[in-house]
Amino acid sequence: MKLQNIILSTAALLATSGTAFAQFQNAEKAVEYRESVFTVMGNHFGRIGAVVKGEAPYNKDDVAKNAAIVAMMSTLPWQAFGPGTEGGKAKPDVWSDNAKFKSASEKMQLAVAELNKAAQSGDLENIKKTFGATGQACKACHDDFRKK
Amino acid sequence: MKLQNIILSTAALLATSGTAFAQFQNAEKAVEYRESVFTVMGNHFGRIGAVVKGEAPYNKDDVAKNAAIVAMMSTLPWQAFGPGTEGGKAKPDVWSDNAKFKSASEKMQLAVAELNKAAQSGDLENIKKTFGATGQACKACHDDFRKK
Repeated sequence: MKLQNIILSTAALLATSGTAFAQFQNAEKAVEYRESVFTVMGNHFGRIGAVVKGEAPYNKDDVAKNAAIVAMMSTLPWQAFGPGTEGGKAKPDVWSDNAKFKSASEKMQLAVAELNKAAQSGDLENIKKTFGATGQACKACHDDFRKK
Repeated sequence: MKLQNIILSTAALLATSGTAFAQFQNAEKAVEYRESVFTVMGNHFGRIGAVVKGEAPYNKDDVAKNAAIVAMMSTLPWQAFGPGTEGGKAKPDVWSDNAKFKSASEKMQLAVAELNKAAQSGDLENIKKTFGATGQACKACHDDFRKK
């Protein structure tokens, strides 16, 4: 539960940190930032996926590094979905059903944190399990909130 | 010197890790990845810059988190500059004068590592000093290797 608490309070902190896109010069910069974060996150998640699917050999250090990158990146994009930053690949539902979006984003971060724990411990069976759960959390949010 | 060694061996490892863009489906994906990394890195470097310039209050935890993100991101883009990945904002000099590019990339990573050390220790004067040195390392590489 401790891990959960840390992630939920980070998410809450980011969600309430001042003005709409305080950390961004304008809405376009916010869109560029969040899509860049997802690009980097997706790449490193995909590298773990190749191992899980047996397309690449399992190397503990590589998977641990990739999972740490995914975990760090998973905390970042949400601050760039503030009011007034509509656009890019995001559906309007991000803003019209923001509570659901927030809940989906928290589920993803929790799933990633579990994947990262498994990756750091080097338990391949648990890596596979938590990778699958993370993939489902990604997909659920994409289905509802990302344009096709 | 130990920190230097770690960074140089990481860079060497990434530079020699197999085929041109093994981690990327194609050259376009490599360009998208590296430019995304620079976008995220630039954003978090800029947040430290706002503190250094006195435009934002100094908060040790925030600066430490931003510096850790910059440090992690600084190790990533180089693997996406392999042969056959010309394009995007990169000048052809990245490939025609690759030794110089590699040296510039290593200088940047070392500067960022120093900035991160200062940020984790919370020494604002040293943060300012290492931020300035990092900015110069960024600029030197941009002048030579990034399109205007």
